[in-house]
Amino acid sequence: MTAPLRLGIAGLGTVGTGIIRIIQEHGQMLAARAGRPVQIVAVSARSNNKDRGVALDGYAWESDPVALAKRDDIDVFVEVMGGHEGPARAATLAALDSGKDIVTANKALLAIHGNEIAAKAEGAGRVLRFEAAVAGGIPVIKALTEGLAGNRITRVMGVMNGSCNYILTRMESAGLTYEEVFEEARALGYLEADPQLDVGGIDAGHKLSLLSAIAFGSKVDFNAVELEGIGAITIEDIRHAADLGFRIKLLGVAQLTGRGLEQRMTPCLVPAHSPLGQLQGGTNMVVLEGDAVGQIVLRGPGAGSGPTASAIMSDVIDIARGIRMPTFGIPATSLVAQPAARSAVPAPYYIRMQLDDKPGALAKVARILGDNGISIDRMRQYGHDGSAAPVLIVTHKTMRSAVELALEALPQTAVVTGETVALRIESL
Amino acid sequence: MTAPLRLGIAGLGTVGTGIIRIIQEHGQMLAARAGRPVQIVAVSARSNNKDRGVALDGYAWESDPVALAKRDDIDVFVEVMGGHEGPARAATLAALDSGKDIVTANKALLAIHGNEIAAKAEGAGRVLRFEAAVAGGIPVIKALTEGLAGNRITRVMGVMNGSCNYILTRMESAGLTYEEVFEEARALGYLEADPQLDVGGIDAGHKLSLLSAIAFGSKVDFNAVELEGIGAITIEDIRHAADLGFRIKLLGVAQLTGRGLEQRMTPCLVPAHSPLGQLQGGTNMVVLEGDAVGQIVLRGPGAGSGPTASAIMSDVIDIARGIRMPTFGIPATSLVAQPAARSAVPAPYYIRMQLDDKPGALAKVARILGDNGISIDRMRQYGHDGSAAPVLIVTHKTMRSAVELALEALPQTAVVTGETVALRIESL
Repeated sequence: MTAPLRLGIAGLGTVGTGIIRIIQEHGQMLAARAGRPVQIVAVSARSNNKDRGVALDGYAWESDPVALAKRDDIDVFVEVMGGHEGPARAATLAALDSGKDIVTANKALLAIHGNEIAAKAEGAGRVLRFEAAVAGGIPVIKALTEGLAGNRITRVMGVMNGSCNYILTRMESAGLTYEEVFEEARALGYLEADPQLDVGGIDAGHKLSLLSAIAFGSKVDFNAVELEGIGAITIEDIRHAADLGFRIKLLGVAQLTGRGLEQRMTPCLVPAHSPLGQLQGGTNMVVLEGDAVGQIVLRGPGAGSGPTASAIMSDVIDIARGIRMPTFGIPATSLVAQPAARSAVPAPYYIRMQLDDKPGALAKVARILGDNGISIDRMRQYGHDGSAAPVLIVTHKTMRSAVELALEALPQTAVVTGETVALRIESL
Repeated sequence: MTAPLRLGIAGLGTVGTGIIRIIQEHGQMLAARAGRPVQIVAVSARSNNKDRGVALDGYAWESDPVALAKRDDIDVFVEVMGGHEGPARAATLAALDSGKDIVTANKALLAIHGNEIAAKAEGAGRVLRFEAAVAGGIPVIKALTEGLAGNRITRVMGVMNGSCNYILTRMESAGLTYEEVFEEARALGYLEADPQLDVGGIDAGHKLSLLSAIAFGSKVDFNAVELEGIGAITIEDIRHAADLGFRIKLLGVAQLTGRGLEQRMTPCLVPAHSPLGQLQGGTNMVVLEGDAVGQIVLRGPGAGSGPTASAIMSDVIDIARGIRMPTFGIPATSLVAQPAARSAVPAPYYIRMQLDDKPGALAKVARILGDNGISIDRMRQYGHDGSAAPVLIVTHKTMRSAVELALEALPQTAVVTGETVALRIESL
């Protein structure tokens, strides 16, 4: 087929303009790779009189993305607006109704409505691709769906929110508090309009739920992701973790256990010298583990105009090349609803508490841990100026539920003050 | 299409049996992902009475891989024998002549004959895929050909021979000489029957030439790869490099310069804390840089039964899914013959020499470097017990040709003894 592939692009923010720039600059190269020209026919955005740094005069303008989606002269609807309801959802459904393929960067939409939208697309014989929705420029959807298709996937892990990783590494390198770095990140424009999407782990959780579906052939189930943000991480925790040879990361982990599908997006300790521990700033990293391949690590920019547009273009060129497959690798109707297993895999935990400087205080804490079947691997008590001493405990492998029971029982000792923090230590 | 995809597998070594194991264990999963069953119909190997740990009784046996390639009852010829002439080449050509698609792990065959074979395959409407030929289980061919298809690729780098990386990291960690670790690696079976393929950089050079073709749309040109093995690296160089904050890696670099295509597979210094510097043992790493995406790093096992079979299965499932594209991403007839540019990009260099302990000796060396336009960034003179002192020089960015002229002139000073080593320092 040598007819041009005709695109309609909904959304002209940094990603939309990044796509336009690639197509304008590299038309010939793209046509050689795709086997046919890739053309932009029409675009849509909220405002028509903004200078976006790219020429739009060759393209038809639609103020309504639904109208764009329904145009007869486009083959592919490219959705880079965002949001899981409203115009993004309406336009995506309209595009499918009018026979378009879809390329989207919208993780929220797919995390919330992915099962229905994928089923609708496949029922209509259309493809829906979303490389740009997870880990920005890293071709992780392709690596998992196609590159590791010969593997039973055993675990998927990743740092998939660059803003959180920026905050955590900046706290460590500059010795600043969470609040200070949060304000800095907001001023630099690194955070979503609703920053809780980033620091609450929601955005990264959306991404993890999409990887889970592909990895385990399970229905997308964002509601089953155990979410914990980074807002409670203190500079002291970061320093203590470093003392113990770890770094704290907002880490997503998905694995199929005997009790169901475990999906977590929580702050974890990882070995400082592991690839995940070495990850600095806004970079993303995804670790894919399969029974045949072992461990594959992918690292790259998780956001930004160029990287996200690069991922969109990968999907567009696949469609231009005639590559068609189900959204999540197997038909949406075959995806299995897995029971949600909450922290079903045991792990060591890092526990930090403030202990009154009284005789026998530590023995009381140790007894409560022991009563809950938790054994201590390492313990450190730090110098202090008040009456309470910071105490760090690294446990042997235990269940999250045991840690929670112990944490609930600790106040009974009357020697633990303030908030006790427990973070999982993830092995790599 | 739901008819089974029928495979003939030529070669029943670790990779061939790894493929059989995956298909025997995961038939249902593979069929779900491929949209159709994947079946082995026939196999071929030199010996028919060896226990390979997998059941072969369901498959037809061919003692001649060419006969296997010609069978009417296979769709895909899977070549995991190796070697760029002889049976591997003959069987691959026979498979194309009889209308089969090809999946191969044979980097040597494609590095030497890839242009002709790809053109023949495309002329016949067949696909030839080779994910397993480069970096084992890392899906790097897919990442480059498809995942980054929207990018003008600016540079490709990688550590793509696990045996060399094992030797270099083991020298450092155990403080052993090259010769000692070489013998150890040979005893462990880590080296090819002809170890020069590994330690001479030939195998890694084959891989680099394939990545170059995809990255730059250029004809495969293995003969233009500047090859330098690791045999001359001493434990002293490894220690000195570490003192300076670097590690030594057999590093492949390909980039398109104003003077042509530069392809190098040579020992280089890389920053110890960079992803490449952190790479230990037999693991591979490939760095892909594109104008839109920036830098993507892929890391994983570069060899072995499971990882290589995983890569083969990725190609097999792609074919089962109906994914068809030219071998090197654009038609083989469109690949451009690029002039070979030898070290056309300036870089800092590490230079180690033995200097006689005489007044003015260092001045003489500095003058020769200066005469060749090389300026010194850092210099270290070490203590010594004989009359010659080890001297390390790190230069500012300069051309390889200038370094070579300086090295040729150094003996004229009559103060430099023994062999002088110059290694490029690669920035990341």
